[in-house]
Amino acid sequence: MDPKFIQSIVEDVVKNYMKIRETVNNKIPIAISNRHVHLCKQDLNMLFGEGYTLTKMKDLSQPGQFAAQETVTLAGSKGRVKTGVRILGPERSKTQVEISRTDGFELDIMPPVRDSGDLAGSPGIVIVGPKGAITLKEGVICAWRHIHMNPEDALHFGVTDKQYVKIKVPGDRELIFDRVLVRVSNQYSLEMHVDIDEANAGFIKNNDLVDLII
Amino acid sequence: MDPKFIQSIVEDVVKNYMKIRETVNNKIPIAISNRHVHLCKQDLNMLFGEGYTLTKMKDLSQPGQFAAQETVTLAGSKGRVKTGVRILGPERSKTQVEISRTDGFELDIMPPVRDSGDLAGSPGIVIVGPKGAITLKEGVICAWRHIHMNPEDALHFGVTDKQYVKIKVPGDRELIFDRVLVRVSNQYSLEMHVDIDEANAGFIKNNDLVDLII
Repeated sequence: MDPKFIQSIVEDVVKNYMKIRETVNNKIPIAISNRHVHLCKQDLNMLFGEGYTLTKMKDLSQPGQFAAQETVTLAGSKGRVKTGVRILGPERSKTQVEISRTDGFELDIMPPVRDSGDLAGSPGIVIVGPKGAITLKEGVICAWRHIHMNPEDALHFGVTDKQYVKIKVPGDRELIFDRVLVRVSNQYSLEMHVDIDEANAGFIKNNDLVDLII
Repeated sequence: MDPKFIQSIVEDVVKNYMKIRETVNNKIPIAISNRHVHLCKQDLNMLFGEGYTLTKMKDLSQPGQFAAQETVTLAGSKGRVKTGVRILGPERSKTQVEISRTDGFELDIMPPVRDSGDLAGSPGIVIVGPKGAITLKEGVICAWRHIHMNPEDALHFGVTDKQYVKIKVPGDRELIFDRVLVRVSNQYSLEMHVDIDEANAGFIKNNDLVDLII
């Protein structure tokens, strides 16, 4: 066979392979976070009774994290409430409430967009459980959109922990999310998290694939 | 005075002016559309009584358009309703209901993203007024995000009617909306329209300025 012919076939195959690889490899599955609460041990005791333990309803995609069977009520000002707000486990060192901006308008509370755990100066709220209520001085945030990945993923994408990247969401309502926070840990599995408002703006469903653009 | 010194000052002034001009000139004010209903004459009569005329509550930014004092109730399936849904006037040739995806989840109805007036194959809904109800066969949409502009604006931006452009929204939740529809008419004044989900995703407020990127 003509070596040039063979070479051209090999080149075509490699080109197609690279194209497929590039397409597949930029993809990240996306997950939608609804409003939820993380509780510290003390607040869990106040809301559900001394020595209470959360009951797992289902595992979340991030290893060790779970949705609990237990829910609470959030009480904003002007008598506005949200009932049935899911608790995520396990317990954390500090109580944190994550809501969407839509929730914020409904509760009459306007939290800033923050990375998880960065609560300084954020507004408080009243959380009501079956055995009592707590008045949080601060801790209500809108979650900064972010991508969880392990160090191998980070190497693959060529990004590092705390880097900001762009993410493209395809469809009729194609969106590019700028300032998406990358979080790298060997405790994480690859997944982008957005809140309900961000999902509804882009007609995003759980497990849709989005493109990383650095 | 040294002519070179004068020249350098003039050059500086011109440079700064061009920079300011460039910055100002890419900007478009944005407005948030909440859920609303446009009614045809026949449906208005069915809902409010024969010969009824809408009462203007306030003018909208687009010339001739107004928010009416009158509201209706939207009834989805499973007993889900939205009360107090604003009617926009004047009457149109066809009844059209515009809701957000969040509203869609709450009403258990999933309309497509469509340009205004493009209703073929969209889902229907029940609309309830003080004198009766109508069962719409089709006409519920999520509005395709769009920019109204007059021919002079179009010339300025270098775009034409029905072109799609990108829009950049600055801030902590910086977003680039792709596939934004340009609508040109001498009946329009310059304004981009997004729905509540798109606004909340980007922490957008009415009259915020966004950047056109072609």
